[in-house]
Amino acid sequence: MTQIQTRSIPVIRTANSPFSRLHPVSLQQVQLQDTFWKPRRDINRQKTLPSQYARLEESGCLNNFRRAAGHPEIPFEGPFFADSDAYKWLEAAAWTLAEGQHPELQNKIEELVGLIENAQCESGYLNTFFMFEREHERFTDTGAHELYCAGHLFQAAVALNRAGGNNKLLEVSEKHARHMAQTLGPAEEGKKPWVDGHPEIEMALVELYRETGNQQHLQLAQYFLDARGRGLAREKIWTFWGSYGQDHQPFRDLKEVTGHAVRMVYLSAGAADLVLETGEQALKDALDAQWHNMTEKRMSVNGGIGPRHYIEGFGKDHELPSESAYNETCAAVGSIMWSQRMLSLTGDVKYADLIEHQLFNAALPGVSLDGQSYFYVNPLAAGPEHRRQGWFGCACCPPNAARLLATLPGYFYSTEKDSIHVHLYAQSSSEIQLWDGRMVRIEQHTHYPWDGHIKLVIEGTGEFALKLRIPAWCENASVKVSGEVFQNVPAGCFEIQRNWEGTTEVQLNLEMPVRFMVSHPHVADSSGKVSVFRGPLLYCAESVDHAGDVRDLVLPAENTLQLQASSALQGALVLQGTGQVKLHPTWSGKLYQYTAKIHSPLQTEQITLVPYYTWANREEGRMQVWLDHS
Amino acid sequence: MTQIQTRSIPVIRTANSPFSRLHPVSLQQVQLQDTFWKPRRDINRQKTLPSQYARLEESGCLNNFRRAAGHPEIPFEGPFFADSDAYKWLEAAAWTLAEGQHPELQNKIEELVGLIENAQCESGYLNTFFMFEREHERFTDTGAHELYCAGHLFQAAVALNRAGGNNKLLEVSEKHARHMAQTLGPAEEGKKPWVDGHPEIEMALVELYRETGNQQHLQLAQYFLDARGRGLAREKIWTFWGSYGQDHQPFRDLKEVTGHAVRMVYLSAGAADLVLETGEQALKDALDAQWHNMTEKRMSVNGGIGPRHYIEGFGKDHELPSESAYNETCAAVGSIMWSQRMLSLTGDVKYADLIEHQLFNAALPGVSLDGQSYFYVNPLAAGPEHRRQGWFGCACCPPNAARLLATLPGYFYSTEKDSIHVHLYAQSSSEIQLWDGRMVRIEQHTHYPWDGHIKLVIEGTGEFALKLRIPAWCENASVKVSGEVFQNVPAGCFEIQRNWEGTTEVQLNLEMPVRFMVSHPHVADSSGKVSVFRGPLLYCAESVDHAGDVRDLVLPAENTLQLQASSALQGALVLQGTGQVKLHPTWSGKLYQYTAKIHSPLQTEQITLVPYYTWANREEGRMQVWLDHS
Repeated sequence: MTQIQTRSIPVIRTANSPFSRLHPVSLQQVQLQDTFWKPRRDINRQKTLPSQYARLEESGCLNNFRRAAGHPEIPFEGPFFADSDAYKWLEAAAWTLAEGQHPELQNKIEELVGLIENAQCESGYLNTFFMFEREHERFTDTGAHELYCAGHLFQAAVALNRAGGNNKLLEVSEKHARHMAQTLGPAEEGKKPWVDGHPEIEMALVELYRETGNQQHLQLAQYFLDARGRGLAREKIWTFWGSYGQDHQPFRDLKEVTGHAVRMVYLSAGAADLVLETGEQALKDALDAQWHNMTEKRMSVNGGIGPRHYIEGFGKDHELPSESAYNETCAAVGSIMWSQRMLSLTGDVKYADLIEHQLFNAALPGVSLDGQSYFYVNPLAAGPEHRRQGWFGCACCPPNAARLLATLPGYFYSTEKDSIHVHLYAQSSSEIQLWDGRMVRIEQHTHYPWDGHIKLVIEGTGEFALKLRIPAWCENASVKVSGEVFQNVPAGCFEIQRNWEGTTEVQLNLEMPVRFMVSHPHVADSSGKVSVFRGPLLYCAESVDHAGDVRDLVLPAENTLQLQASSALQGALVLQGTGQVKLHPTWSGKLYQYTAKIHSPLQTEQITLVPYYTWANREEGRMQVWLDHS
Repeated sequence: MTQIQTRSIPVIRTANSPFSRLHPVSLQQVQLQDTFWKPRRDINRQKTLPSQYARLEESGCLNNFRRAAGHPEIPFEGPFFADSDAYKWLEAAAWTLAEGQHPELQNKIEELVGLIENAQCESGYLNTFFMFEREHERFTDTGAHELYCAGHLFQAAVALNRAGGNNKLLEVSEKHARHMAQTLGPAEEGKKPWVDGHPEIEMALVELYRETGNQQHLQLAQYFLDARGRGLAREKIWTFWGSYGQDHQPFRDLKEVTGHAVRMVYLSAGAADLVLETGEQALKDALDAQWHNMTEKRMSVNGGIGPRHYIEGFGKDHELPSESAYNETCAAVGSIMWSQRMLSLTGDVKYADLIEHQLFNAALPGVSLDGQSYFYVNPLAAGPEHRRQGWFGCACCPPNAARLLATLPGYFYSTEKDSIHVHLYAQSSSEIQLWDGRMVRIEQHTHYPWDGHIKLVIEGTGEFALKLRIPAWCENASVKVSGEVFQNVPAGCFEIQRNWEGTTEVQLNLEMPVRFMVSHPHVADSSGKVSVFRGPLLYCAESVDHAGDVRDLVLPAENTLQLQASSALQGALVLQGTGQVKLHPTWSGKLYQYTAKIHSPLQTEQITLVPYYTWANREEGRMQVWLDHS
């Protein structure tokens, strides 16, 4: 057994959270060695983070900090919440340190930490937009993202401290949080009542509390949540109000996901953090209802959320368009953070199922294969004009995707009092500490997600349970433990409770045939069509592979689609088969015709489907998820 | 033959427009006596206009004029373009005078005219928002709707003058237009280059030119059109820019309808007005391309346009959602105004076809049957929460619908040099002056749109042609003239050229069976579904008539749907038949399922379809246009 690293770097530190059933395993204890995630994370470290730092410099975001440090002659650049982009980058870089030494990255981190420290006001306040001529506007507009920016600062500080980068920003954060707590709060305490226009501060304050032990942060987070839906934020607002910002009713009465999607899932993640600390049932009930509404009524087939462009947010039940879906990358990242907290709270496998689904199909598509361009908007059908961009005026998504990739190993395992939960699968080597200090080594040998054979080699001694996630997508799973075979294992949690000794092999086999999926009949846009999945991966059709219009493809039966490796897509397995394409000779120049049905002649077409996360990495063209079938 | 009224009140006065092939017949020469439009127009006069005037008063819109007349202590209320609501109401009221004396209405008109006169500045400038503290901001922001408001003032002034109300506002308008012409224009003339953020001024100036003969107005309209798409409006802008406001390319290069829908169709209507005066081919070519793009790629099945909420505007080709369609009432009104101008320019029946379609199915649904509540947004499927409102913060639609109803008789007929065009059908009595001064009396005896039998009684003498529109929706039309029968008359224009004598009966029979209509296969939302038409009317299903969910109805064959009069819907004919409703027992709590197709059991259901224009006039519930069929 190798030497155990003792420093713990969990993505959320719930070790002392009284209502946390599960505790994420430290991310540096999980070494990914696979061909799927490891290359993406290498690119994230080697290409994405350096190029994003350059973008932060070019866009003026870093200069805003230099300005705040006593240089009013430097113009403020970018949106008023630009600070948050730097903080999110810093958080991503901090988590990346958990992987090992990266001197260049360390230099950039130190430069940025220095900029942030210098930009902080004597009072503790820190926001580069509200300096000098705007100083008197501090905490006057709940839509001004001041707490949103502060929250991302706190999360970066926590990550940096946890990853052993340094603890300077933790001091900065605490000072800022103290100032906040002195200024904002109940009117009866002589403070300014406050409902922040963009949630984020809630989970940040809880994590700051976990990192420092300072109860005041937890109390402030609770105040910010409890203040919502009571008409406190009507004074002045830059953006929107009401349901857009989840301020139309008290959070405990909110039984659906509504409004701006990133705001919604960040807020719910923060509320889940509070439940982990307080165990409040009413809050947990609301979170359950919201999560069910999201997954059963308001989520695109790829796990994308927030289809409405004009609010970047949720629509009504079953309002799930394809080509006009908004589905911001940040919303998928936020949803994963929310489910992570629900998973720790309950241990329920359904949350890990959604984390996996959104990782592969909603968050990962936000980043190009070369790690240097990004989708903000993630539709399920698109014309050739929709391509990833190098950066955005509102650059929230790129560093959000980077911090998700940086924390990925932290999503693989959790420990429970007497057991180890395996949430995700990939070729990897991990060392996991049990509740009594015993170490267990787990090696995963697998080509997942390209096939479902997973050999887990467990090196550990004594009584504990290994709890394997059997994904909801899998209809035919089997497990073999030391010669004993379990067939037709149902989706959910498969528990192997035993007295382990030396090295034990567990063979998990998740059959992953190609499968069609249909949507609820009230989802108008995909009515009568199918989407195609294999294992956890959603597939789509791109113009570059087809002679005909991808909107008109007719798939052959699912069992005739063959797997094929694609060198153009970093070895992704694509699906190929002989289908058809519909022709529309009678539709030229027409939009509507009087008839009950137009006969569309069919022509044979070789069909290629690629994983949805790989789309728009080759030449421009249409993309289509929902397809006809014969 | 009755006494001819000689005052001419055409909806657009093209008598002297050199490139106008057709000239609309004066609206007071067409007396509607039908049970469809006449009651709606009576309500418009008796209920809608008085109640809207009260709303203008309540909302502070009229007070803004009092404020501008030297009372800075009165606060400005409403959006910065609130003046336009008053002007549109005034235009509607003015056209209503063409019907006869209405002392109460006349009093309100005179009050409002007085308010407007008093609000005008010495310079001629007139906009109640840019007074006092905002005076220095006049003509600094192309997004501030100053020319938009002015345009509506000019149109009201023209209507009032044309209808014989009074000509005071014509002087006000000319003074304002002179100030505008002195201030705005080419830089080389020492003026401020200007692209207005919201088109409207173009058609208003052309009509002002037609009413006054002052060439300067025509030239200024031409300048405002020609200035677009040349990067002149980049300085400062309150709303959006580029394609949203049709300023991304020169108008003559614009071959599609794009951006904010009302802006687009108002601009195209203004451009068409210019072509009527100048005959410019390049401009006409662009208008042709835009109109074809709209009708062949970007129009909902009801004629609604501008489906995207976030820009209140056009989407991509075939982006035509149902429940999330925006389709602003004003956009339909503007489209009718555009087609009216194209019809005068070309005489092409297709424009009258679209006018009829949008009148019945896109504009009329904007007003409740009682004439006192309005839709701003007109989706093709809706939940119970979508109901007409009494007024809006941005109250553009209510007076726009009112002015359309007020001008309706002016859309029925046009004269051409040697002929009379019949565009619309309804029980009515009209007197039409031919090019040589001869009068022709036309009586229409019909229950149109409830049936397609139209008896036209023509009282006129000598050579001229009667040109009947055979609607595009009609597959089986016949015409009988003095015993001679023409069967299988194709859609388009049916010309009866003869030497008329005394009284002649023309029997037009437009068969109107119930017919299903399908949409282009790339319109994802309505794929595989049908909409139902009878004659010019689109039908829909409402919850109030059904036990099952209207989204799940399965129509029987079109020829089994029976006509039935509905007392609850002011005598509208509804369609009834025995169909089915799909049940979804396997979908409870699920959004997606792995399968190629879910079997939905069917249950017998009595189906009732009501004309789309009547929806949301009974108890709350769902509405659905696109339906399944067996």
